[in-house]
Amino acid sequence: MTLDAISRLLKPRSVAVIGASADTKKTAGRPVAYLRKHGFTGDIYPVNPRVDNIDGLPCYADIASLPAVPDVGIVLLSAERAHLAVRELAQRGTASAIVLASGFTEIGAEGARRQAQLIEAAGDMRLLGPNTIGLVNLTDNIVLSASGALEMDHFPVGSIGVVSQSGGILGALLSRAAPRGIGLSKLISTSNEVDLDLADFIDYLADDEATKVIALYVESVRNPDKFRAAALKAARAGKPVVAFKIGRSEAGAKAAVSHTGALAGADRMYDALFRQVGIIRAQSFGDLLDIPAALATGRVLRGNRVAILTSTGGAGTLVSDSLGVSGFETPTPDAETAARLRALQTGDHAALDRNPIDVTLAGLQPDLLRGAICALLASPSYDALTIIIGSSSLAMPELMAGAIQDCLPGSDKPVIAFVSPHAPSVAALLTQRGVPAFSAAESCTVALAGMLQHTDWKEPVSSPLGAPIELADLPEGSLDEAQAKQLFACFGVPCTRESIVTTSTDAEQAAHAFGGRVVLKVLSGEITHKSDVGGVAVNLTPDQIGPRLQAMTTEVKAKTGVSPQRFLIQEMVSGGTEVIVGMHRDPLGTAILVGMGGVTAELYKDTTMRLLPSGGYALNEEEALAMVRELKSWPLLDGYRGRPKADLQALASAIVAFSRMAAQLGERLTEAEINPVFVLPAGHGVRAADGVVVLASTS
Amino acid sequence: MTLDAISRLLKPRSVAVIGASADTKKTAGRPVAYLRKHGFTGDIYPVNPRVDNIDGLPCYADIASLPAVPDVGIVLLSAERAHLAVRELAQRGTASAIVLASGFTEIGAEGARRQAQLIEAAGDMRLLGPNTIGLVNLTDNIVLSASGALEMDHFPVGSIGVVSQSGGILGALLSRAAPRGIGLSKLISTSNEVDLDLADFIDYLADDEATKVIALYVESVRNPDKFRAAALKAARAGKPVVAFKIGRSEAGAKAAVSHTGALAGADRMYDALFRQVGIIRAQSFGDLLDIPAALATGRVLRGNRVAILTSTGGAGTLVSDSLGVSGFETPTPDAETAARLRALQTGDHAALDRNPIDVTLAGLQPDLLRGAICALLASPSYDALTIIIGSSSLAMPELMAGAIQDCLPGSDKPVIAFVSPHAPSVAALLTQRGVPAFSAAESCTVALAGMLQHTDWKEPVSSPLGAPIELADLPEGSLDEAQAKQLFACFGVPCTRESIVTTSTDAEQAAHAFGGRVVLKVLSGEITHKSDVGGVAVNLTPDQIGPRLQAMTTEVKAKTGVSPQRFLIQEMVSGGTEVIVGMHRDPLGTAILVGMGGVTAELYKDTTMRLLPSGGYALNEEEALAMVRELKSWPLLDGYRGRPKADLQALASAIVAFSRMAAQLGERLTEAEINPVFVLPAGHGVRAADGVVVLASTS
Repeated sequence: MTLDAISRLLKPRSVAVIGASADTKKTAGRPVAYLRKHGFTGDIYPVNPRVDNIDGLPCYADIASLPAVPDVGIVLLSAERAHLAVRELAQRGTASAIVLASGFTEIGAEGARRQAQLIEAAGDMRLLGPNTIGLVNLTDNIVLSASGALEMDHFPVGSIGVVSQSGGILGALLSRAAPRGIGLSKLISTSNEVDLDLADFIDYLADDEATKVIALYVESVRNPDKFRAAALKAARAGKPVVAFKIGRSEAGAKAAVSHTGALAGADRMYDALFRQVGIIRAQSFGDLLDIPAALATGRVLRGNRVAILTSTGGAGTLVSDSLGVSGFETPTPDAETAARLRALQTGDHAALDRNPIDVTLAGLQPDLLRGAICALLASPSYDALTIIIGSSSLAMPELMAGAIQDCLPGSDKPVIAFVSPHAPSVAALLTQRGVPAFSAAESCTVALAGMLQHTDWKEPVSSPLGAPIELADLPEGSLDEAQAKQLFACFGVPCTRESIVTTSTDAEQAAHAFGGRVVLKVLSGEITHKSDVGGVAVNLTPDQIGPRLQAMTTEVKAKTGVSPQRFLIQEMVSGGTEVIVGMHRDPLGTAILVGMGGVTAELYKDTTMRLLPSGGYALNEEEALAMVRELKSWPLLDGYRGRPKADLQALASAIVAFSRMAAQLGERLTEAEINPVFVLPAGHGVRAADGVVVLASTS
Repeated sequence: MTLDAISRLLKPRSVAVIGASADTKKTAGRPVAYLRKHGFTGDIYPVNPRVDNIDGLPCYADIASLPAVPDVGIVLLSAERAHLAVRELAQRGTASAIVLASGFTEIGAEGARRQAQLIEAAGDMRLLGPNTIGLVNLTDNIVLSASGALEMDHFPVGSIGVVSQSGGILGALLSRAAPRGIGLSKLISTSNEVDLDLADFIDYLADDEATKVIALYVESVRNPDKFRAAALKAARAGKPVVAFKIGRSEAGAKAAVSHTGALAGADRMYDALFRQVGIIRAQSFGDLLDIPAALATGRVLRGNRVAILTSTGGAGTLVSDSLGVSGFETPTPDAETAARLRALQTGDHAALDRNPIDVTLAGLQPDLLRGAICALLASPSYDALTIIIGSSSLAMPELMAGAIQDCLPGSDKPVIAFVSPHAPSVAALLTQRGVPAFSAAESCTVALAGMLQHTDWKEPVSSPLGAPIELADLPEGSLDEAQAKQLFACFGVPCTRESIVTTSTDAEQAAHAFGGRVVLKVLSGEITHKSDVGGVAVNLTPDQIGPRLQAMTTEVKAKTGVSPQRFLIQEMVSGGTEVIVGMHRDPLGTAILVGMGGVTAELYKDTTMRLLPSGGYALNEEEALAMVRELKSWPLLDGYRGRPKADLQALASAIVAFSRMAAQLGERLTEAEINPVFVLPAGHGVRAADGVVVLASTS
């Protein structure tokens, strides 16, 4: 049903333009003009009480007078009056309306009131906008917009569908794509998203036959679950999604009680979300065209070995160096390939044993170029080919492009081109012929890296929760350390043995009972960072406990104003590696965070995270292990320099258990962190040694 | 004298062209044609025995027949024959020759032989090349080249001097600069550098009045001392140097015995060299024009607060976000500035209290634009201004550029522009008028970051060595740990107390003598990484020593095949932070490396380094402290989370002492590393606890 309305919005049979002007110099004159200019074959109903006809089309006095119910209504009225037209369109049963006016939530309280009015007026009718520049269906040459940015005689038609939360950016993408020969299928600006949002159009484009790649300009994902579902649908349909997200530098993280909150910046949450649903993140706005351009070819990058074929100076080195910085390899040709290359040309062959592979004059000898490309694509040594095209190509662009194109059907390996920036027409020609062309070495690298990321992505598996763990009634607010670990233990996280004591005598007794050395800690829900205020002492013998407890009482009182009443005597864990497992609630969802513990690792922010799908899913062990392997300090757990291998199985189980706790408690769990969990050598398990839990009220 | 010859090369009074052709379609026909086309006012002497005259100029049969000694000879002969002309030119007393042919060291042994022949033939005459495309003096319209890449009716004249080790790249830079309105002063390709090299031309450009900024394309610095001196001369002359270096991804680091060698990659050495001499490193080839374009304005960036003025959508957000990612701030206007902005325009003022500051229609109202720019430049809240120019500017580029230009004299703060990529003519116009324009948000950020780096740079101070430390005769090869520390101690590095023992009994006695707990280590010049083979035991009581020594003997024997004979009993240092101080010999010089120690920090490669100037200089304490502060884990030494502040003074002294050792021993010291030095709380000093020294033979 939703899909139907959206499909109809993208390809309407009839369009009413409310507030249309006969003056094409005015903004209000554009929608009708654009529809006709690009040959819209459906019905156009201009609505304006002061005009009889527009360019020969009858103009209607009001919506009630329309001869039929339009599929789409474009509302050109001001923010104050748009709701009137929206209500009438809805009442006539129009499927969708596009409201172009600005002046809604983006300008403050008064605008927010108008926006609420608009939503109420629309009722069941679908709404795009407000504050949008509308949309363009390039596949079918339909423009539903009043934006001068879409003033263009011929659109660059292709297979990249673009959805943008910014209107201005949409025009910028179109006007950058066109001269580069990058073809688009649909362009949609969602802006204020009172109804239709990013996810709706990702969902639509995942089904759209004309679209092979989806490019997103993201300001904020308002409905993460819907977004996730749509992105996964696209991924399963084999359609890569590439996103550029603005707002990377808004620190904007509220001070959080646990370390986890501080480490998980808002932008990192998007990184996690995108990675989990297979979205390739564009790091610059330029990448948002470059990566889709490469992916739109449908060719497949299966490894990181790139052949660089050049017939000109300098640029091959730039490309090679840039690829190397990003982890690509540029091996020299294998013997058989080198022999094939040598057979192609007489004279100096030295340059054929290198990579960049220098084929003299190939740019002006199509047969030579064809032979070299085919040899390199056939070589088992390469996963992709980058061709360097100098400005000499301007002499015979068609012949050269044709020669390259001839080689494409023989292989599905990626073929991209670096084209000298003063031959933009050659670059556009190549891109149109299926060889995406770039004018910067870094763009070649980014494009190939995007392709590789798409190939390498696998949909992560989550585990459904199953029957919930039975829990006693939980209090509200911060748990003390002992309570926090009891909660962890309920979900299956092994914790250190410990006793709660209030006096020195009890403390000594407890220490004796554990045997060996112990840890002494203050126990209070009010003190989160105990060690910062002198509230932790490690490696104590039983006879050191008494005096240490007294000293600790004094120091903690002095530093916090809180007079500690209770203490924890804990078995001392040694020989383990400290790991942090935490949780972070974010508008995007619940993140499970794994990081290396210890003060040094904390400074390097060596953490990784996953967002839990909502609706009762926890991490599974494979995913938990993958997280641990992503840590820069992963070797510490993997037998680095003769250390024993850590008990990864037990660590993975603990992470899964922690994630089950987060999933089951849902909104009740405001903060949670195990810091540290000691990971012992393989076979010896893990021990959660400290932790934080903050619970929301049940109401 | 050198300067004179080079000045003469760049601005010759007469040029002989050896092997000139009358056919301007041939490469050999170009030099004479180029000289005349650009109005060279000196004498041109074509030399070719088979031609009478070239375009009306008399052509000479050989060099001996020339009517006068030319200032420069351009040699167009093949690699095999170039040396003949070079010898004759030298014999006639020509100041400099340019050899364009390729086919020298770059093609292998036969070419290397030719290159040696060329050097011999040149004698005292200065030589540019071979394998060069020559040079262009844009200031004076003189082209000494046969390259089609220089085929251009009018050069973009300005104040950026370019020196490139690649010829192809030189052409690429010129053809990218020209359409962007970026002006150049000199373009020089040094290529094989048999004589004149990068440093010679940096030195020249530092004196050249027409040059304000120097841009370098670097493949390899062949003479680091000369390069360093030239770069410092430019820096002292207030001329920023920007370098793009290729070869960033050549891992190419030979396996080194100590950790230091492994951590200091070749490319990082260039980073260190460039930073020390004030060279701004361009991270992409594109940056090599963008950063100089900004610096060429001579305007000064004194802080990181940027005002963004826009009259168009989207792009302001892109620029703001990109700036934020790189640490720039974009604060909202202060009250006074906001009031000035409000006074400029009627209507909606909401957009004026933000940054990007949205001045509606400013692009089409020069007075409004002028007023807004002047207000923002006058504001104490901003250090720089970025103006966003949309494609609407195409309607009246001159008026708009003029309005911006009018505001420049009132302030020396940087003003740059982001111009929509489909208005390249507007971007070029602005750049020519002193407002460098870029078409990507990232380029704006890179340009400003380059300016800030230039402002922030201070020439590091080194300490002359003074009288050398008296040393006993040093052995060759690897020192054992005790010897290494004795050497460190000679230079003033405090080391742990320790005794060398061979038996369990001696070991126990030594442990008793130290009192408290001790460390037991095998002592052998053959075993570098003792702890990896079980050769280190810490925290031992005297009675644990005997059995541990036996066990260690067995384990080390099993793991290395070496049967340890000697052991070290060492005082146990506790409560300190582990730091590594090392040294690395590289073709670029001797690097002193400081890194955080401990297995975790080692994985994060948290290190920093400085190259020692050759000729007997050590680091001074200020520089040593600066290094320590650059470490990511610097807070560990600076009182992080209630830890005691470390003894930085003692650490700095130890680093300086270590650098004096490296400087005094020079080539004799192949490897050296203190790993770790324990840095104790302030007032308690440092203790070098382990170390590696490898000495070369004295011959």
